[in-house]
Amino acid sequence: MNNMSIDMKEASLNLHRKRKGKVAMRGTTPMKNGTDLAMAYTPGVAEPCLEIFKDKNTVYDYTMKGKTVAILTNGTAVLGLGNIGPEAGLPVIEGKALLLKKFGQVDAMPICLDSTDSDAIIKTIQMIAPGFGGIHLEDIKAPECFYIEEKLRELLDIPVYHDDQHGTAIAVLAGLYNALKVTGKSIEDAKIVINGAGASGIATAKLLISAGVKHIVLCDLEGTLLEGDTGLNEAQQSIAQVTNRQLEKGSLRDIIKNKDVFIGVSAGNVVDEAMVRSMNADSIIFALANPLPEVHPTVAKAGGARIIATGRSDFPNQINNVLVFPGMFKGVLKVRAKDICSEMKIAAAKAIADLVREEELKEDYIVPNVFDKRVSIGVAKAVMKAAREVGIARV
Amino acid sequence: MNNMSIDMKEASLNLHRKRKGKVAMRGTTPMKNGTDLAMAYTPGVAEPCLEIFKDKNTVYDYTMKGKTVAILTNGTAVLGLGNIGPEAGLPVIEGKALLLKKFGQVDAMPICLDSTDSDAIIKTIQMIAPGFGGIHLEDIKAPECFYIEEKLRELLDIPVYHDDQHGTAIAVLAGLYNALKVTGKSIEDAKIVINGAGASGIATAKLLISAGVKHIVLCDLEGTLLEGDTGLNEAQQSIAQVTNRQLEKGSLRDIIKNKDVFIGVSAGNVVDEAMVRSMNADSIIFALANPLPEVHPTVAKAGGARIIATGRSDFPNQINNVLVFPGMFKGVLKVRAKDICSEMKIAAAKAIADLVREEELKEDYIVPNVFDKRVSIGVAKAVMKAAREVGIARV
Repeated sequence: MNNMSIDMKEASLNLHRKRKGKVAMRGTTPMKNGTDLAMAYTPGVAEPCLEIFKDKNTVYDYTMKGKTVAILTNGTAVLGLGNIGPEAGLPVIEGKALLLKKFGQVDAMPICLDSTDSDAIIKTIQMIAPGFGGIHLEDIKAPECFYIEEKLRELLDIPVYHDDQHGTAIAVLAGLYNALKVTGKSIEDAKIVINGAGASGIATAKLLISAGVKHIVLCDLEGTLLEGDTGLNEAQQSIAQVTNRQLEKGSLRDIIKNKDVFIGVSAGNVVDEAMVRSMNADSIIFALANPLPEVHPTVAKAGGARIIATGRSDFPNQINNVLVFPGMFKGVLKVRAKDICSEMKIAAAKAIADLVREEELKEDYIVPNVFDKRVSIGVAKAVMKAAREVGIARV
Repeated sequence: MNNMSIDMKEASLNLHRKRKGKVAMRGTTPMKNGTDLAMAYTPGVAEPCLEIFKDKNTVYDYTMKGKTVAILTNGTAVLGLGNIGPEAGLPVIEGKALLLKKFGQVDAMPICLDSTDSDAIIKTIQMIAPGFGGIHLEDIKAPECFYIEEKLRELLDIPVYHDDQHGTAIAVLAGLYNALKVTGKSIEDAKIVINGAGASGIATAKLLISAGVKHIVLCDLEGTLLEGDTGLNEAQQSIAQVTNRQLEKGSLRDIIKNKDVFIGVSAGNVVDEAMVRSMNADSIIFALANPLPEVHPTVAKAGGARIIATGRSDFPNQINNVLVFPGMFKGVLKVRAKDICSEMKIAAAKAIADLVREEELKEDYIVPNVFDKRVSIGVAKAVMKAAREVGIARV
């Protein structure tokens, strides 16, 4: 965490120590006298129990289900820290629960999962699902995260959302819409390289393709992903079938040449000035590695990049998942959605992009600020509309 | 729910519908600007993550674990309603979460379990345990609840508490201490019959024996539990080895004769006036079935009972689990206990009994009111002290 001062580190530890975590429970009904007790507990509680027993759908009416999601991690891919285990992953999911509440008015219960066995994780989440209106997966390493999410989407009738995949993908697409507008490039013609073929990179590629992108090459430390490379994991093999149709080979240094857009969801400091200079004119750089971006904004600028975004709050154009997940869950809960489909993801990205008005749009302002209150409302509305159109909204 | 008026039913449904459940999440740290975001989320959140990764015990310092329990049900034994499923069981665990918060300042996350397979339930709870300081099991049917609780106590290093068993047992013991005092009977000599050989009845028998009771007979619909009866389930066979040492046979009507104490944790209306009259002088009746007690207090009175308690708030001497669980979890969380042992249960019962001062103690006042704020504080203190003495407190 090399961009944090010693003071900041201490302040963070103190904050966490003092509050004992970042979320707590709160009672929403009174409990002051015998009548309150009789209504919320015994014998009155039997009434909603019986209603739900008669018609399971009313669980949305009488319980927390309709406003609550479970946010789960097994701590195998936490921030830049890697596999640090479920307990050490808890501060992150508590932080996301805090953001879901503050930005989206969504109740999220942080739950650690003490396992690295995908099937055991699936089984556990399936078992605890009845009380939740959605499942937010977090910091589960690739490629397991793909299988876990896919299987859960099949098994459950509530939305399952892996933030490391979809949050990033949607935020990137939002930024891309506006970056293309500023540079006058089209989504169909833009040549894009994504560095990082893990959860975020693959999900981003998938969503960009759904949104109309035609030319994407994925790179990782070994070079480009190529169709038929059996050394790749299943998710990589599958994305390799629909990306890099020119079968470009080589390292990132070779591949970035003559591209319009660089999207980094990997590790810091992997792009230098010369590499930026080798890109097409009016190049777009999304250097999203945290805390150290793939290329420092001043370096990217020196290399001639026209638009530069990072995941950090101390530079312009912060492309961060927090633009997405609070509004996403706010929306899916509101319509009691059964799933999150690509139409909803694209709608969310468009909603974020559209919050930057024509006359405001410029190189240094392609996405709204993460504290802009319109963001979660806009995303929620767009997601609700798309869910209803696709027919996966319950109400 | 035959003691509820139509109005009350509607009021309960309206309350549940309006609030969408009875608990919600609340952020405890600020999230107003970039500094807040940097501290609670990225990049500052990496600091507590790393501390916990280095020393897992610090999860109690930096996260919600030290103040949060999971409250779980599979909905197989809900109130008097039976097996109504996990969704329909949710209002009850939300109600308990509300009470844990309001009475014990404990954060409890209600989680439904979609399974009736004991081993799957055990596995799931084990997997989600790292983020919680305790496990509160609720409305899981006997005999599975015994195996599930026992196994989890072996596997986990946090307290596991099945309220239907231990909450009832502790509340009964609390009431018994004071009832014996009023009637001048001794715990060793008191002859006790427990009607109901399910979770509550068996756990109550166990705890009473730990507390010094020598003479207990358990009854159910088939009559008394007898050692060696292979028709009994495992938990019943095991309790039959240490109760009913005179090998009394017969129905409740036969067995209640010449007993000092009747404890009903079964079904309503199973004791009549003649049965009460057949008991020893100064008899004690705990008719705890809800909402319809085993014997109506006026009938018990007519039969000569000296002390009558029910589970209901509209009669004197309400013996209800809510006297116990908020303080119990408040206490175990405070000392980061690894388990709940019988010493802690007995200490909790004594603490509840002791809140009724000598000069206040009388037939109609053997336990404090459930809204008495001293209760959870007294229980918590007693539990903390006992946990430390036994050596299962972490701090």
